[in-house]
Amino acid sequence: MKKPRIVIIGAGFGGLEVAKNLKKAQAQIIVIDGRNYFLFQPLLYQVATAGLSPADIASPIRGVLRHQQNTDVVMKKVTGVDLQAQVVIAENEKISFDYLVLATGAHHGYFGHDNWENFAPGLKSISDATKIRRNILLAFEAAELEPDLEKRKALLTFVIVGAGPTGVELAGAISELSRRALASDFRHIDPRSAKIILIEASPQILASFSPGLSKKAAKALLKHGVEIRTNSRVGDINGEGVSIGSQKILAKTVIWAAGVVASPAGKWIDADVDYAGRIKVRQDLSVPGHRNIFAIGDTAAFIQDGKLLPGVSPVAMQQGRYLARLINAKIKGKEFESEFHYFNKGNLATVGRSFAVADLGRVKFAGFFAWVAWLVVHIYYLIGFRNRLLVIIQWAWAYLTFKPGARLIVSPEEDDQTGD
Amino acid sequence: MKKPRIVIIGAGFGGLEVAKNLKKAQAQIIVIDGRNYFLFQPLLYQVATAGLSPADIASPIRGVLRHQQNTDVVMKKVTGVDLQAQVVIAENEKISFDYLVLATGAHHGYFGHDNWENFAPGLKSISDATKIRRNILLAFEAAELEPDLEKRKALLTFVIVGAGPTGVELAGAISELSRRALASDFRHIDPRSAKIILIEASPQILASFSPGLSKKAAKALLKHGVEIRTNSRVGDINGEGVSIGSQKILAKTVIWAAGVVASPAGKWIDADVDYAGRIKVRQDLSVPGHRNIFAIGDTAAFIQDGKLLPGVSPVAMQQGRYLARLINAKIKGKEFESEFHYFNKGNLATVGRSFAVADLGRVKFAGFFAWVAWLVVHIYYLIGFRNRLLVIIQWAWAYLTFKPGARLIVSPEEDDQTGD
Repeated sequence: MKKPRIVIIGAGFGGLEVAKNLKKAQAQIIVIDGRNYFLFQPLLYQVATAGLSPADIASPIRGVLRHQQNTDVVMKKVTGVDLQAQVVIAENEKISFDYLVLATGAHHGYFGHDNWENFAPGLKSISDATKIRRNILLAFEAAELEPDLEKRKALLTFVIVGAGPTGVELAGAISELSRRALASDFRHIDPRSAKIILIEASPQILASFSPGLSKKAAKALLKHGVEIRTNSRVGDINGEGVSIGSQKILAKTVIWAAGVVASPAGKWIDADVDYAGRIKVRQDLSVPGHRNIFAIGDTAAFIQDGKLLPGVSPVAMQQGRYLARLINAKIKGKEFESEFHYFNKGNLATVGRSFAVADLGRVKFAGFFAWVAWLVVHIYYLIGFRNRLLVIIQWAWAYLTFKPGARLIVSPEEDDQTGD
Repeated sequence: MKKPRIVIIGAGFGGLEVAKNLKKAQAQIIVIDGRNYFLFQPLLYQVATAGLSPADIASPIRGVLRHQQNTDVVMKKVTGVDLQAQVVIAENEKISFDYLVLATGAHHGYFGHDNWENFAPGLKSISDATKIRRNILLAFEAAELEPDLEKRKALLTFVIVGAGPTGVELAGAISELSRRALASDFRHIDPRSAKIILIEASPQILASFSPGLSKKAAKALLKHGVEIRTNSRVGDINGEGVSIGSQKILAKTVIWAAGVVASPAGKWIDADVDYAGRIKVRQDLSVPGHRNIFAIGDTAAFIQDGKLLPGVSPVAMQQGRYLARLINAKIKGKEFESEFHYFNKGNLATVGRSFAVADLGRVKFAGFFAWVAWLVVHIYYLIGFRNRLLVIIQWAWAYLTFKPGARLIVSPEEDDQTGD
């Protein structure tokens, strides 16, 4: 009898976890992704701030699943799902499924102001990260050559919109880049005079943390010279900078770390989605109206105890493991009644070197040890010993020398003035 | 009395060497480059074959010269030189000079077939390298999904045009990628069946080496499954592949490692140049007709003992050191009679893992120890301890596991299917 086919769209934290935990399943598993690598999103901000190279936080999907003989990796962009025929449409191909897992993640959303993207790139992909790295480093280069003081000030002003973990970590890293790494690199400007402004619409930064920890993080950011503007809603972003109400902040570099919207997966199966395009799933992660289609991670809106689960990797991974167990049971024709329940191990966020905040529910702490915990957790979840080793060394190096290593401005239209 | 100003265009091996050796000069030194980093060209082929990350072989120019207070780094693209006014024109700026050093290097040239570049990219810049890496990895991905056997064969055929050190090193590295790293990654194709063809117009590969070593290198390449075609002149390159005379090789991936042409520096000062655009310099590296303008490295055609010096980094570095001494003497009003003389320490080229050829003039050897020598030399000349450490570790890792780590397909138009 033919093995059931499980199609997983998206090889992020959630999708890969499903695939890995179906290693022994009597099924044919097909993982489809438009990219050939898994990206360790939580460290992407370090690529954007010249701390790490893209390859350090990415692992080829085929490499991760190489020894899983029941699994096939297809590098294609999915454009839709044909529910009638029960097939996924990936470019020119139709891939039939018995079970479908939608793990296509999210990308940054601009609350309807899509034109803001041109001036304030978000941070979701490697090309986003290298573009932001380029923008930041080019701003210092341009400032060095800019005689006009006003323009120079705008070039040395960096605005980050959104004070979640990513925004906070970006602010801390940019501050260190300007205060330490680049401090003695220039002759006509003092990079330490760079202004870093973190804008947050809600009343506190790191909203997912306790008010106490949020205050501690804010204090640490201030020590790093980061200016924090809470209760500030961005009205407009353009080539000049950012406006908040009637006030205008002149800044050449603006980074978007605010809203995200789910991938179009919801539309593919015209499911019921929430305001951010997340599919409203049942307690077993299945999509209402479909018994064999599931959504996890940032693609799913899962309500637990009346609250929406956050779009973080632990949620995606736990959902992935749960879903693998559920599908395995279904394949074996076993009953599987238990509902998914997210166990929150806690939240961590780092603020520059040697300081982080850790919210482990009952236990809450901030400072050096929270930072060490942050290091350990991130190294632990990084796929592949090689990447772990390289990241540890580069962190140690940057920690001791204050000099992140990947300070490269590379653009596709890179000019070739120097052949060497 | 005003300090003389020395303008160096190009921060490659040659230009940086001039700047570094003028550290103590009573002069104002300005280094102009369109990029913000020095690129360690000799290892660029490893970025193209997924062995290293760009940042591992690049160092920010400002970082290299940070402690040199008499030196200014300007990141701009030079578009010309105004000899009348004695100024360099860099974008919107005019930079005057008392001494001008042209160290702008070379880029790949197609002997008048510029349209070939679309099908056979060369390997001179980081974006070249990541593009080639993308092409190679995408070819395997496409082959995995290609039902048509003929098309699949074309996808798994890799042609390298030009069998100098770069071509040979590329061939060896691609062979290992297909024979080792990717061997177990695919389900429908066997990457080991990939065909790697090295095309050379002259009768022997590694023409700069002795016939004996060239033969040994050829044997090593054959052992790696590389097909060598000497005495073969490419007639055409297009989307289908490469034609040699009447024969057509169907190949989706073609890499250009043949000719290079010098940068337009010669035109800027309308100097007398050779067939490849290199400025014919005097024995003191000055440009005929100018006492204060010099050309070095790939920008210069220097004839020693009736032979043109090769476009390799040792030549550029030795010329750079010589020129720094010469300019220093001129500044001090001292006589400086000695002419430049290149001391050839020897040539090294590696053929995949554990094998290299070393031509040290009298001493010639091939095999494992030549390979160790190659490792040591390249690590030694790599700028910055951090880069050295990272490269050593990644080489050790790749050597032990046969798996290069940077197997990333990243394109600017990278699609965002997986938000994570």
